[in-house]
Order: sequence, then C-alpha cells, then structure tokens
Amino acid sequence: MAKLPPLLQQLIDALRVLPGVGPKSAQRMALQLLERNRSGGARLGAALTAAMNGIGQCQQCRTFSEQALCAICSDPRRAEAETLCIVGSAADQLAIEQTGQFQGRYFVLMGYLSPLDGIGPEQLGLDLLAKQLASGSISEVILATNPTVEGEATAFYIAELCQQYQCTVTRLAQGLPVGGELEYIDGSTLAHALSGRKRF
Amino acid sequence: MAKLPPLLQQLIDALRVLPGVGPKSAQRMALQLLERNRSGGARLGAALTAAMNGIGQCQQCRTFSEQALCAICSDPRRAEAETLCIVGSAADQLAIEQTGQFQGRYFVLMGYLSPLDGIGPEQLGLDLLAKQLASGSISEVILATNPTVEGEATAFYIAELCQQYQCTVTRLAQGLPVGGELEYIDGSTLAHALSGRKRF
Ligand SMILES: [Zn+2]
Ligand SMILES: [Zn+2]
Repeated sequence: MAKLPPLLQQLIDALRVLPGVGPKSAQRMALQLLERNRSGGARLGAALTAAMNGIGQCQQCRTFSEQALCAICSDPRRAEAETLCIVGSAADQLAIEQTGQFQGRYFVLMGYLSPLDGIGPEQLGLDLLAKQLASGSISEVILATNPTVEGEATAFYIAELCQQYQCTVTRLAQGLPVGGELEYIDGSTLAHALSGRKRF
Repeated sequence: MAKLPPLLQQLIDALRVLPGVGPKSAQRMALQLLERNRSGGARLGAALTAAMNGIGQCQQCRTFSEQALCAICSDPRRAEAETLCIVGSAADQLAIEQTGQFQGRYFVLMGYLSPLDGIGPEQLGLDLLAKQLASGSISEVILATNPTVEGEATAFYIAELCQQYQCTVTRLAQGLPVGGELEYIDGSTLAHALSGRKRF
C-alpha cells in the first residue's frame, strides 16, 4: 500500500463529499467498510445511486419527492389548508413537521437569496410561489426562514411579494436563538416559536 | 415529508454503516448531498460499488489489492527483503509505510485473535504466514501489532509460531502509548518505535 489500490484511493476521495469528512476520516471509513462490512458498503453504494437519480422535487412545494407531488401535497386534508409555511430547506421542513404542531402546507425554498452566488428569486422558485398566492387559496403565509442575515433578507423579499395578495404574513415567534440554524433547534422550542408567531 | 420518500429513508439508514455516523448526521448528509451535490453523491455511490466488489486481498500479504499481488509484493526490490512486518490492519500498514522507514515486506492479519468472536489463527491467515516462514526467506519478523490486550496476545501466539523457524522476532520499541491504537499514532513516534525495536 505504498500507493493505494486505485479503487480504494477513488473511494477515499469520493467520501470527502460528505459534510464533516476530512482525509483522515475518509480513509478510516473506507478501510473499515472493506474490512468489516462490505455488504453494508455495497448497500450504501446502491442507496446513493438510487437516491441521487430517483429523488426529484415536488412540483407544488419543491420538497424532495419521488413522485410529482409529495406526501403532504397529495394529502387531501392538507392540500386544502389555507396556511402556507415557507422554509429554507427540506431539513427545516422536517424539523417543523416533527413538532406535530402544523397541519398546513409548505413551500421549500431550497436556499436563500444570495446574489453573489447567483441565487435569485428564480432559483428559489418564487414564480411558482407567486402563482400559488395568486390562486387565492392561501390566507396566511408563515415565514419560517432561518434567523440569519440571508434568512431575514429572503423573508423581507417574500413579505413584499405577499403584499400584492390578500394574505396575512407572519413570522415564527422570537425565541429562536439569533444567528442559529433552524435545522438544529429542539422540537419544543420550535413548537413554541410556531404557536407564538407574530404578524410580519 | 411527514413520512420521508422511501429512497431518502433508505439512504439515511444506509449511511449509518459509516463509523461515527448517527441518525442525525446521516439525515444531514443525505439532505446536503441531494440539495448541493448530487453529482458528488452519485460519484460516491459508484465508487462504493466499485470498491466493495473490485478490491480483494493480496495472495501473499493479505493487504487490500485489486490484483493477485499488491504493489509491495510485486515490487522486486521489496519481494527479496528478509524482514517481514506483521500488522493488524491495512490502516496500520499504511501508517508504517508513511514513516518511510521500512523497506521490507508486510503481513496483514486483518484482525486479532479473538476466540469469542470466532477469530482464530485460520481467520488471520496464519497458515499462509507459516508457509512463508517455512520457505526460509525471512530472517526477521517484526511484530507490529497494537499495544492492546488482543494485539499482545496475537503477538505472543505468532512469536511461538516463529520459534520453529530460524528467524529473529522483534517488537516495535516501547514508546507507543499503552492501550493506544497504532492507526492514530503520529509518524515520527512510529518511526522511533520502529528503529528502536527490541528482540521479542
Ligand atoms: Zn409537495
Ligand atoms: Zn501483498
């Protein structure tokens, strides 16, 4: 192993795409899989291939989905809800869903406005959002973006967009730690922030 | 995402085979790949599949190899070396190789004796080792096993095996932290331990 076998070196390099995995832990992961769990490693390979190719986005709310409409958008009780919760990512949606306190619909931005990175209203699907607002079926928009600079800026932009339509715009209650990331906040704090939401 | 899309749930579950990855970080990894780096995720999937299926073990030293003989065993200068270094894992071999202080051959146990786990001499390839010792081409065996209970027990077992043949048995010098794992020791400590090895 003066020079590693090419397939092993490629695996170590490829593992670096995982968040928080540096060269040393990538090497450790690759060798451990080869030594102790080849079937698990092969299963992970197949799962990655299937997921990266097979998971698209819901045509209505943009969350990850294998079908044209996700489970929530195709649930008739929720599809009729007049409250739309706007979140920055699927992880944030999942965090709110896990509080069990919200029965409405979602819109998942999959990012925040960031002109320097080329992320504008189009990349966040705000034209799709405008169409849904224009349909008149939504009476309240909850802006559940991260309490960060990008999250706030995006929330202001969407709040202005909502002004053209007859809908109330609210934000999650303060109580979220400033500068924190929604995805990592515990469920009960999040549930309180949700029930105490304020008019924007 | 009340219930996650099946392919996403399968990916999160499959990621748990990686050492140190719990449910929360598996979810974070899966969502980040889908959101930000699908091509990297697909590349990792292909690399895992290729590595798990394509990497075998060297017929002579048992290290990971795509060919019948690994790069070291097929290097004529090293194949003639009379010093054989016995290590517990490919990661340990790599750590010694990276000191640049050793020019001999290796034998990689891929584990330590552990009767309760069904790991005996056969599982560690000690019959293959005995054949190499019997050929008379090895004058020194360096026992570079971990300074742990299992590593010591395995070293004693192999030292006894070596008694039947005319070869010197040495161990890495003390200096290794007791109870530590060879794989995580810095290169210069390891280089010192190697040059200061003592007769067993
Ligand atoms: Zn949807
Ligand atoms: Zn070899």
